[in-house]
Amino acid sequence: MKARIHVTLKNGVLDPQGKAIEHALGNMGFDGVEAARQGKYIELDLKSTDRASAEKEVDEMCRKLLANTVIENYSIDLE
Amino acid sequence: MKARIHVTLKNGVLDPQGKAIEHALGNMGFDGVEAARQGKYIELDLKSTDRASAEKEVDEMCRKLLANTVIENYSIDLE
Repeated sequence: MKARIHVTLKNGVLDPQGKAIEHALGNMGFDGVEAARQGKYIELDLKSTDRASAEKEVDEMCRKLLANTVIENYSIDLE
Repeated sequence: MKARIHVTLKNGVLDPQGKAIEHALGNMGFDGVEAARQGKYIELDLKSTDRASAEKEVDEMCRKLLANTVIENYSIDLE
């Protein structure tokens, strides 16, 4: 089973990487970009084939290691 | 219009961040993880409302700035 995890900064948290992308794109002549935000994308290959237990385990991984829940949100897609 | 971009390392390219995640999860007792890979996730808010031109523009942004196409793949979702 494969888990796809998106970790993004919460609204209101300063996103210097996103701002850098915005400015760089603007400087390169792409003036159609109103805002940019950058997050992390993590793919995990899991041994588990049980969806419910895999979801619980990956959620725990996110809370304990992959995301800083003070400033970041995460979402999990299993397939 | 919103563009969601995933930038991931090509197969065969060393992924030290992914390896660090694998090892850290293993050390924390999550032994159900066979492999981990880390990529970037970028969200852009676009002024454009025309799907075809937006797709072309974002593709150009990826090739010129957001992805290093020598070692990275990218995928674009528009909505």
